[in-house]
Amino acid sequence: MEMAGCGDKKQDLAMRLRRVEGQIRGLQRMVEDDKYCIDTLTQVSAATSALRSFALSLLEDHLVQCVAAPASKGGPEATARVREAADAIARLVRS
Amino acid sequence: MEMAGCGDKKQDLAMRLRRVEGQIRGLQRMVEDDKYCIDTLTQVSAATSALRSFALSLLEDHLVQCVAAPASKGGPEATARVREAADAIARLVRS
Amino acid sequence: MEMAGCGDKKQDLAMRLRRVEGQIRGLQRMVEDDKYCIDTLTQVSAATSALRSFALSLLEDHLVQCVAAPASKGGPEATARVREAADAIARLVRS
Amino acid sequence: MEMAGCGDKKQDLAMRLRRVEGQIRGLQRMVEDDKYCIDTLTQVSAATSALRSFALSLLEDHLVQCVAAPASKGGPEATARVREAADAIARLVRS
Repeated sequence: MEMAGCGDKKQDLAMRLRRVEGQIRGLQRMVEDDKYCIDTLTQVSAATSALRSFALSLLEDHLVQCVAAPASKGGPEATARVREAADAIARLVRS
Repeated sequence: MEMAGCGDKKQDLAMRLRRVEGQIRGLQRMVEDDKYCIDTLTQVSAATSALRSFALSLLEDHLVQCVAAPASKGGPEATARVREAADAIARLVRS
Repeated sequence: MEMAGCGDKKQDLAMRLRRVEGQIRGLQRMVEDDKYCIDTLTQVSAATSALRSFALSLLEDHLVQCVAAPASKGGPEATARVREAADAIARLVRS
Repeated sequence: MEMAGCGDKKQDLAMRLRRVEGQIRGLQRMVEDDKYCIDTLTQVSAATSALRSFALSLLEDHLVQCVAAPASKGGPEATARVREAADAIARLVRS
């Protein structure tokens, strides 16, 4: 049941991740420089939010391209794909 | 674009909510009786988890019945439904 | 190491919980009446947010009255209380 | 009211962040290579959990060193510090 990644927004997704990587490197400098914990925690919250937004963007893409589109062609695969997506959403909600 | 609720697991969903209601009433008694805050917080975490599980169960049902099933019948509605579901997931993840 | 509940904002906390209970009962009616899942999910997100706000309010009270106040009287208890609070926060963040 | 960072576990905190940075770079490769979205989402959930654990570890350290310890020396600062910590926890819970 493998499928190519949901590629349409690839540039946007890559850019979001580079930004998160920058935030994580910023956090490393904050720890290295003994910055005040509360400021570090605020930066962690920002990075977590950015990761969540990345995930939600990827997920919407996935639902359009890998759930609704195959379903529209019929076949028994739709329910399996929905279950798989629902499991990924549950992991996301609980992470 | 309204649609009937995703009814198949209605009894299960109703039972989960009655249990959450019981947890909330338990919390009210804990506050009333001045129970130790940490124990009250533990009970809040349990109720929040139960609400999340309820939401994830409802969401999976919704994706099967109200996203994948209409998509399999074709029509232009699938993308709108996916967007709507993605928005609901985003609210859930951020709540 | 038990301690009375953090009572100062008892009325406010009780009122918040009554409101959450009302939201849960509203959810039960929505399921009963086969309301559209997306609307039900929106209401779940609202109830989850309300529970989180309740928990954060209770937690702040707890940190003032049951962590900072005992610490200010000295004694070896402060670290144990902080650990206990940190564990409760972890459960909350992950719920 | 500034204060040095909570330094005791600096090595452990730095190591956790390097690991998260590795996870984010892994995510960039997954997007680059068009990996299947569900696998990418699973990796996002893992990175988010790792960030949360980092934050909770930093927060516990902070509560011990920057809330309980100053409180034990007395002074009017304790409540302000608790409020500040409670605000950071709220941002974390909601991120």
